Amino acid sequence: LIFLLSRHPECELVFITSESKSKTTLGELYPWLSKYRDLEICSVQKSSEIEVDVVFFCLPPGESIIWAELFLSKKSKVIDLGADFRFDDLHNFNLWYNLKHPKPELLKKSVYGLPELNRSIIKRAQIVGNPGCYPTSVLLALAPLFNADVVSDEKIIIDSKSSLSGAGKTPTKISHFVEANENITAYLPGRYHRHVGEIEQELSKMSQKDIQVVFTPHLIPMSRGLFSTIYLNLKNKISKNELVEIVFDYYKDEPFIRVLKDTLPKTSMAVNSNLCFLSAEIIAELNCAVVFSAIDNLGKGASWQAVQNMNIMFGIEETSGLIK
Amino acid sequence: LIFLLSRHPECELVFITSESKSKTTLGELYPWLSKYRDLEICSVQKSSEIEVDVVFFCLPPGESIIWAELFLSKKSKVIDLGADFRFDDLHNFNLWYNLKHPKPELLKKSVYGLPELNRSIIKRAQIVGNPGCYPTSVLLALAPLFNADVVSDEKIIIDSKSSLSGAGKTPTKISHFVEANENITAYLPGRYHRHVGEIEQELSKMSQKDIQVVFTPHLIPMSRGLFSTIYLNLKNKISKNELVEIVFDYYKDEPFIRVLKDTLPKTSMAVNSNLCFLSAEIIAELNCAVVFSAIDNLGKGASWQAVQNMNIMFGIEETSGLIK
Amino acid sequence: LIFLLSRHPECELVFITSESKSKTTLGELYPWLSKYRDLEICSVQKSSEIEVDVVFFCLPPGESIIWAELFLSKKSKVIDLGADFRFDDLHNFNLWYNLKHPKPELLKKSVYGLPELNRSIIKRAQIVGNPGCYPTSVLLALAPLFNADVVSDEKIIIDSKSSLSGAGKTPTKISHFVEANENITAYLPGRYHRHVGEIEQELSKMSQKDIQVVFTPHLIPMSRGLFSTIYLNLKNKISKNELVEIVFDYYKDEPFIRVLKDTLPKTSMAVNSNLCFLSAEIIAELNCAVVFSAIDNLGKGASWQAVQNMNIMFGIEETSGLIK
Amino acid sequence: LIFLLSRHPECELVFITSESKSKTTLGELYPWLSKYRDLEICSVQKSSEIEVDVVFFCLPPGESIIWAELFLSKKSKVIDLGADFRFDDLHNFNLWYNLKHPKPELLKKSVYGLPELNRSIIKRAQIVGNPGCYPTSVLLALAPLFNADVVSDEKIIIDSKSSLSGAGKTPTKISHFVEANENITAYLPGRYHRHVGEIEQELSKMSQKDIQVVFTPHLIPMSRGLFSTIYLNLKNKISKNELVEIVFDYYKDEPFIRVLKDTLPKTSMAVNSNLCFLSAEIIAELNCAVVFSAIDNLGKGASWQAVQNMNIMFGIEETSGLIK
Repeated sequence: LIFLLSRHPECELVFITSESKSKTTLGELYPWLSKYRDLEICSVQKSSEIEVDVVFFCLPPGESIIWAELFLSKKSKVIDLGADFRFDDLHNFNLWYNLKHPKPELLKKSVYGLPELNRSIIKRAQIVGNPGCYPTSVLLALAPLFNADVVSDEKIIIDSKSSLSGAGKTPTKISHFVEANENITAYLPGRYHRHVGEIEQELSKMSQKDIQVVFTPHLIPMSRGLFSTIYLNLKNKISKNELVEIVFDYYKDEPFIRVLKDTLPKTSMAVNSNLCFLSAEIIAELNCAVVFSAIDNLGKGASWQAVQNMNIMFGIEETSGLIK
Repeated sequence: LIFLLSRHPECELVFITSESKSKTTLGELYPWLSKYRDLEICSVQKSSEIEVDVVFFCLPPGESIIWAELFLSKKSKVIDLGADFRFDDLHNFNLWYNLKHPKPELLKKSVYGLPELNRSIIKRAQIVGNPGCYPTSVLLALAPLFNADVVSDEKIIIDSKSSLSGAGKTPTKISHFVEANENITAYLPGRYHRHVGEIEQELSKMSQKDIQVVFTPHLIPMSRGLFSTIYLNLKNKISKNELVEIVFDYYKDEPFIRVLKDTLPKTSMAVNSNLCFLSAEIIAELNCAVVFSAIDNLGKGASWQAVQNMNIMFGIEETSGLIK
Repeated sequence: LIFLLSRHPECELVFITSESKSKTTLGELYPWLSKYRDLEICSVQKSSEIEVDVVFFCLPPGESIIWAELFLSKKSKVIDLGADFRFDDLHNFNLWYNLKHPKPELLKKSVYGLPELNRSIIKRAQIVGNPGCYPTSVLLALAPLFNADVVSDEKIIIDSKSSLSGAGKTPTKISHFVEANENITAYLPGRYHRHVGEIEQELSKMSQKDIQVVFTPHLIPMSRGLFSTIYLNLKNKISKNELVEIVFDYYKDEPFIRVLKDTLPKTSMAVNSNLCFLSAEIIAELNCAVVFSAIDNLGKGASWQAVQNMNIMFGIEETSGLIK
Repeated sequence: LIFLLSRHPECELVFITSESKSKTTLGELYPWLSKYRDLEICSVQKSSEIEVDVVFFCLPPGESIIWAELFLSKKSKVIDLGADFRFDDLHNFNLWYNLKHPKPELLKKSVYGLPELNRSIIKRAQIVGNPGCYPTSVLLALAPLFNADVVSDEKIIIDSKSSLSGAGKTPTKISHFVEANENITAYLPGRYHRHVGEIEQELSKMSQKDIQVVFTPHLIPMSRGLFSTIYLNLKNKISKNELVEIVFDYYKDEPFIRVLKDTLPKTSMAVNSNLCFLSAEIIAELNCAVVFSAIDNLGKGASWQAVQNMNIMFGIEETSGLIK
């Protein structure tokens, strides 16, 4: 995020906060940065005295809420890369994050920041809840199919494969190189992962029905990239070409969505970018479809999408600073 | 396979054939071997003059068939790591491998070499078709559930993740380090991969019904290991514990199957071994289950299982030479 | 290179040639590209009819020479990413590449394109021989020390570690994922690797002496990045701080060289950029020094440096299109 | 180590201690183990009441010393995989580990457990200090050359590359997958790493001179394997063949050392084994040599060598339990 903002033609980076790294310069932390090398990291407290157009939050669940109100009161817009503003419904946030949302009224002011679906409301939003990485990959894959009303029932199976950068920056047993390398495992299979809440909220809005998904995330020995393989039943017979065409048409004017007609997505296509690659396959015998979605979990799945949201919120050219 | 046989207490390695590496010693090819370092690789032609108890084939589709007859005529048993002897039905082999099986009568003499399911017929077999890596992981996971009659219908979704050693030894664009590393992709999704034939043949036998599966293999940047995540609908309500217990009980006397009750399998548990790790999860709201299976694609998914089959065919202790 | 040129503010991409991929569009080959997606790849023959300001060559040894003359005759400048124009001396090219240079007169028109050392002559050059990846990492590390005359003798030991993208795009046994992954090996140790020619040519110019190096390249299981650890004897006692300061001062105005005073370089700092990270250590007891250099072998070690050379040759801002 | 001992034909595993994992069974910790699955981990305190033939320690510096005395008093032999018993000289231990050795008298009873050099004294030892991984790779490479008196002077440069399992099991910033993957870096270059003490102690004994080395360890993105590239000056002209022959002859009866005459070692050759692969190259122009050494840092560089030492101490066949 810092890197993207530092080279964004319409941005000036005003402050970066961190309690643990206070007083460090950005150049010390990120020796490859070209600009803002002398910018000193400050405490959140100190940053809150400074007036800025927009603040990005990357904080543990529940913490963005506390700081958001302060910045909103000073007319800053807020883009939250955490989960605090992704839910329409207080109840769902409390349920999935096992927290009591301290400022329910703020949820009403926030929008779910998936630009390809919610561009018009993002434009007017004061607060954007930037989507999670898994939901981004899944919702972009399914939106065209729900829109075309080809998905027959509610049982959607999502098998996702994430790189290790999705597991957080804190060193843990799971992210130890020797544990993660040469290894695949699943975690929190079924309906346990917090991202299920976001996925079901948005799919239910798309379909006007109460959708429940089966979601199995897997950890894969790589640093960047996320791949979702999504299995669904079809309402009616449809050919592969027709299905792919539905997805292709839906996104034909989108700068960051690439629908592949003859090949399958690879995460390496999407890494270091805001791109999402999609394709689909039909199993005619069983009247079902498989949809494939590849993104960079830190790109379209996090910071790059956050900058796309900023561009929209401020009327900047949407691809500005985001051409790979 | 060479390494396993070289240290097997009941084996003597008599010949190794390769047309391209003829005259090379095993020690030159595999400098880490401890025994048979001076054994010279010979041509298949020459090997066929030598009498042995058992021959292992690792050949392209259609080629084992040709040589098998010769060795059978000399009373050697045959274990084929390729696909030539995995099918009960000539038609299926021809269909999936796009070949005309030149010796249909040999298929009748061969058995599908998954010991946990077919131990008794392997014991008496002249020819064993050693199962493919994907089918091994899938069939071991599903056998207990079909046996307990808890799987409700025929739509079984198999999402498998394989390491690169599954993609063959010949250098290709797909197996180039820079292509494969930091990348995930799917290939041949739906019902295109040749292993679908094997999987459906065996599942149909288990269930006494004509089973069709959805199968999506993925390539993962690692050298060894294969993970299958299998989604199925349940006939009746059943708890997670009950489901896991079914699998656990089914394999309670099996030396190479480990059923995990409280954790999920990881491929790193299975690498360099003949082990298969299994576990299961229930999604009660949707009345479906997810079963997890982790093996070493070159271990239980190939050579180690081939040696297990040999042990059974010759009345050797089944775990002989296979304790990791 | 295509990606860099496609987003370069001062460039228009006119043609891309490939005999094997003729008629393919760039978008088919590189689905992540944002511009030039419909540009069709053409044959070299066809391209030579088109007038352009500059042509980049990425060809096997000896082949750029043939085409260079044609483009030069049409007033195009040439930047060669191969080895054909890296040598001052015909004899050295013939020796290291075991070829007879067919156009020795062209060598006189070409310059060695390491901008930090040769910026002024690159500015006026018709042909630039873009340096090899290993030489780039080594020469940038040693130039300041030869310039300050602190290196005592001629025995310089270079231990380099390269990622697999340095081993070429053609699938080979060496670049097969299963061979390269979880493995380290050395290759062509001593004075056998072709890059020794370039390194010794440039070091001899720097030092005004005939320098011979010991050079051991290693292959490391990663896709991008190159690290050189260089051991040298010191003329006189000097502290670590003094040594690092010499390097720091030498490059203080260079936009792409970062000298680390308190930490050691990592290749991850340099990946996807034109940056070179340097640092140094002293072993006082033995009066020798170790210098560390990290680059992206495809960045500063190839395409990014080629674009830097283009910027210089055309009087464009040197960092244009190269800010990571 | 547990795995090796569990399948060793002459061993019975009596206890395993761990304060943090007390009461866990081995099967829970290592689900792939075949034997001792129900053995419960106990506290050190409790273990010390049990009589055993040999105890292995894997403890932080200074801690083995404390427990060793207790077990020695009960006539157990001790094999320490840490550094507490690797030094002949109290002063050196204190210097390199910045600790005061609490039982200097125990150092006199311990021997440096590199079997190929010290077999006869290991046979009679009560305490064996199992060598560090880097020293193992280096000392095995250099012993034949010092023995043949071909190394001319004292300046030996060791450039080592280690996998991440060498960095310890505790999750740290350095061992985080995203930090370590796709990255190379050096650490503690010069004469700072603690293994320098061991290397210099043993080289000085070999050469009867006070040897000081330059040692640069590097971290490489892989789980297992260690490669050392060692540069040294030659006393007299010698051909490559002569040099390799010296090494070959020196180890011709050693079961675990493989000297390659025509190729270079690769760490993948040594992984999961007690093998060390060696080869050498000459740079005639500069009268120096490069020696290459590849081991598994957890194999010959740790547990497998510890079991080799046990076999020697108890008069068991030296390769027992160690044939890969």
